[in-house]
Amino acid sequence: MRGTLYIMSGPSGTGKGTICRELVKTENMYLSVSSTTREKRAGETDGVTYNYTTDEHFEEMIKNGEMLEYARYDSHYYGTPRKHIEERLANGTDVMLEIEPQGAMQVKKIYPDAVMMFILPPSMWELKRRLSERGRESEEQIKERLKNARWEFSQAPYYNRIFINDDLHECVREIRRFIGETAQKRGFVEELLNEKY
Amino acid sequence: MRGTLYIMSGPSGTGKGTICRELVKTENMYLSVSSTTREKRAGETDGVTYNYTTDEHFEEMIKNGEMLEYARYDSHYYGTPRKHIEERLANGTDVMLEIEPQGAMQVKKIYPDAVMMFILPPSMWELKRRLSERGRESEEQIKERLKNARWEFSQAPYYNRIFINDDLHECVREIRRFIGETAQKRGFVEELLNEKY
Repeated sequence: MRGTLYIMSGPSGTGKGTICRELVKTENMYLSVSSTTREKRAGETDGVTYNYTTDEHFEEMIKNGEMLEYARYDSHYYGTPRKHIEERLANGTDVMLEIEPQGAMQVKKIYPDAVMMFILPPSMWELKRRLSERGRESEEQIKERLKNARWEFSQAPYYNRIFINDDLHECVREIRRFIGETAQKRGFVEELLNEKY
Repeated sequence: MRGTLYIMSGPSGTGKGTICRELVKTENMYLSVSSTTREKRAGETDGVTYNYTTDEHFEEMIKNGEMLEYARYDSHYYGTPRKHIEERLANGTDVMLEIEPQGAMQVKKIYPDAVMMFILPPSMWELKRRLSERGRESEEQIKERLKNARWEFSQAPYYNRIFINDDLHECVREIRRFIGETAQKRGFVEELLNEKY
């Protein structure tokens, strides 16, 4: 049986990165690594944080239809090579893609059976607090993040399931339950399709 | 807040009609009535089972883009007028559409936030038993129904949520829980969008 493609979205500061890393610890699941043309920052690892590549190579991949989805921010490309995903799904491994809503919609068109999950913060106030607390961005950048977050929230109804990350462990537990249930139901569909009658 | 559009699919004999009628008894929800050009049968009521109309009128509606989705079976048209749905959603009423997978995909393109539910039987063997028991179809027709059911099952992974109708009351309870949760999460998205921060 083919693997299931899971998509995880949610604004910066909702904790989706942490959630994804928690999930792949126990689920038999491959966490997809995006490709980017931006420079590697301190603390990042090639092949783990991102696969770092050149503009020329990235544009070559776009031209050859090798990108499942991609976007350009701040004069850099970010995207998901189709090959990494397709090989794993074909040999039965579940794949987790952590991407923003526009990319998610591109992927859903190619894989209509992808399971889309959206992470919400418990409130805008709390999201603002989390962004300020991590101290990575200026006041101005945080304002920009929050404006973008509002746009992302408006996309949540297009997802299969919405989760609220109030308590991290509770949220991960709920997502695990949902993934387990999805796997069970899809397995059951396979059984029905194989049943002699 | 706009109403939510729910789509219910599942092969003949899975009990989706009964489930929909049960759901609208307690949920504040409008069960959409399809239009058809086939003749009214004994026991059917105009405006309840279907809205009966002529080929000319139906084709006029298609031409004017008034059909949300439609299909032709056995030389008859079946479809959903867009107006009935849109008016209700706009004034905040949830709407339930009971349609087959091809129509469901047409609707999902127009309403990407529609919530798609699929009903499965506990087994092919049980589906066959149910179809035989209701005694409406010949052996040949039941074979045709089962063949079609298999095709429909293959579409289930494109839906938001799959339910197995083993015990009717348990299945309806599970769907009610799911609808309640969906409403709660969507309400929460609205709250976030309206929050001053």
